[in-house]
Amino acid sequence: MRTYLDHNATTPVRPSAIAAMSKVMAEVGNPSSVHAHGQAALSRVETARRAVGKVLCARAEDIIFTSGGTEALNLALHAAISAGGVGRIVVTALEHEAVAATAIASGLPVETWPVDAKGVARVDWLAERLSRVSPEDGRTLVAMMLASNETGTIQPVREAATLVREAGGLTVVDAIQAAGKIEVDFAELGCDYLAISAHKFGGPQGVGALLAACDAPMARHHHGGGQEKGRRAGTLNVAGIVGLATALEEAVTGLARFAALALERDRMAAAIRAVAPQMIEIGADAPRLPNTLGMSLPGWPGSTQVMAVDLDGVSISAGSACSSGSSKGSKVGTALGLPEAASQGFVRVSLGWNSKPDDADAFIKAWTAAYARAELPSKQMPEEVVG
Amino acid sequence: MRTYLDHNATTPVRPSAIAAMSKVMAEVGNPSSVHAHGQAALSRVETARRAVGKVLCARAEDIIFTSGGTEALNLALHAAISAGGVGRIVVTALEHEAVAATAIASGLPVETWPVDAKGVARVDWLAERLSRVSPEDGRTLVAMMLASNETGTIQPVREAATLVREAGGLTVVDAIQAAGKIEVDFAELGCDYLAISAHKFGGPQGVGALLAACDAPMARHHHGGGQEKGRRAGTLNVAGIVGLATALEEAVTGLARFAALALERDRMAAAIRAVAPQMIEIGADAPRLPNTLGMSLPGWPGSTQVMAVDLDGVSISAGSACSSGSSKGSKVGTALGLPEAASQGFVRVSLGWNSKPDDADAFIKAWTAAYARAELPSKQMPEEVVG
Repeated sequence: MRTYLDHNATTPVRPSAIAAMSKVMAEVGNPSSVHAHGQAALSRVETARRAVGKVLCARAEDIIFTSGGTEALNLALHAAISAGGVGRIVVTALEHEAVAATAIASGLPVETWPVDAKGVARVDWLAERLSRVSPEDGRTLVAMMLASNETGTIQPVREAATLVREAGGLTVVDAIQAAGKIEVDFAELGCDYLAISAHKFGGPQGVGALLAACDAPMARHHHGGGQEKGRRAGTLNVAGIVGLATALEEAVTGLARFAALALERDRMAAAIRAVAPQMIEIGADAPRLPNTLGMSLPGWPGSTQVMAVDLDGVSISAGSACSSGSSKGSKVGTALGLPEAASQGFVRVSLGWNSKPDDADAFIKAWTAAYARAELPSKQMPEEVVG
Repeated sequence: MRTYLDHNATTPVRPSAIAAMSKVMAEVGNPSSVHAHGQAALSRVETARRAVGKVLCARAEDIIFTSGGTEALNLALHAAISAGGVGRIVVTALEHEAVAATAIASGLPVETWPVDAKGVARVDWLAERLSRVSPEDGRTLVAMMLASNETGTIQPVREAATLVREAGGLTVVDAIQAAGKIEVDFAELGCDYLAISAHKFGGPQGVGALLAACDAPMARHHHGGGQEKGRRAGTLNVAGIVGLATALEEAVTGLARFAALALERDRMAAAIRAVAPQMIEIGADAPRLPNTLGMSLPGWPGSTQVMAVDLDGVSISAGSACSSGSSKGSKVGTALGLPEAASQGFVRVSLGWNSKPDDADAFIKAWTAAYARAELPSKQMPEEVVG
């Protein structure tokens, strides 16, 4: 029996979501069809839309269902850029490629918003940067995560969105790791766009949503049918949408239980620090997702750690899954200005809705055993000094 | 118990696909993750990719999984236009908005390729048009359906793709209605791009694929992770992809049985013609999908026919589901140059993999009863003449 501790990459589909989807898949209907079969399918979608809106404090009509987080973020940036008079884009140093690469592909000037040593985007930097914007250069589009996928650090979205709005700009929020893990209140955050992805909170893969404020510029990215009030063409994934809503409702109902995962997270960190005091726990002093442990063992490459515990039956990651295999690896080291050895030594251990204390135990056992076997300069140095 | 005869809008998910998806949804894994959980998910995807390739006579590496047909067509046009040096776009008069609207949104000159009275695109017109293309004006992008969603007429893709290739152009084929209903051989068709959608052949909604020849220009439309060899960013929908492959394999295995649906289709047409001889059966003399009856009752609006049989428990449509509710309605009338009354009188009745003779009976009963109740000038005219 393997141990799964990479829930930020994808988390198991909740049985309630599978049951709801199975029920829908036993029916037939295209929500765009005017007949009774179609209208029944449409009713499923609209019930799900209202449920998502209620949970995220958004109007149902502001929710656009997409094929996932990447499409939602691409749509947000496309809409803001093509209909919003954007002149420049500011993205935090932590952003996923779905934001960072999309920003660069736009051809607009892209600036990186730095984070502090805890992994939190610096509001003072943003305030200063916005104070230097002249209106004739177009609006500023600011893209930021609500919670980092790699370290779990929670970002100052509300403060930033207020500053951006006062400066006449637009804010895109990647809430893909936050939704279903902490409270997400679209109305209170005050951003213009917010993206979520079902498979991060126990819904199916292949479905997500973009929340767009009623005054947010909008332009479709996929052309075709008039679905989603003309904002996203393509037959609606009825079962997937129902699965998303079911999982999100269950996740939000269980937020208190999810918060308690911090105990397991801290227990893992303490066990590792006990044998490897040089371990750096990223964002330990910042507000963080309760499930995410982003840590660095300077001098021991993250990819080696991942492989070592994988052989012992435990799945963790060296950064976001989407960047796996790319030479860039984790963004955290660069963003936080860590030394090269510490930057390369980053791993992410992420608990999930079905994690048990046994899972943390399995990780501690596998990691400490691998660490004991590893021949690391940082480990040998004290002995040499002693010797 | 209602009768569903709108399988071209969406068809029930095959039990084999639901079973395969349920199995995958009970597992966890992001195919981009390097650990064993991720690699197991990746293996599911690659097995599905090989199965799809085998069924459609395409190389596995030429298959790009998407969120559906609309995204696949958008990606094809985007790739061809941004990386292929396209100077103009030619689309048949039958194309779905996912092609027609995307072509127009490109800003390039768009020409409409006419169809003949049977609803088949005229190869002679294309040959003549291509003969007038001068290379310095850029390549010609030709987009066509393999089978019409509204009439089921099969289009001369192979002949067209050969002409287009000889003229240095590119061909995008919308095979969304054809795949799983007739044989689709990507290699033999000779086109550059071909789009399919799972929910049209008994797979789930929210997943599709674009087949792109190895020499077809490619440019990503969604930016983000490196999935699908950098051609389509976003976490792969593992369960959906497995559902697509399972349904497509089963559909293709059952093509002979599906072809026999033509008997039911023809029985419905004959029964209607018996009471309403003025009925026009579109494409009756052309090669057609066996399941699709596109017909017009001049003077009796299609939307009224749909509502009338809907009240009697039978679901049919007045055109593509995606255009439902839009004032444009069916494209068939305009494409075929039908008189206004005939154009507005169009309805589509489409059988599916689980259709039974009872379904055809239910439609015949509902339609003929509604027709008997309807007060139509075309019906009353003979009586008035007699009177």
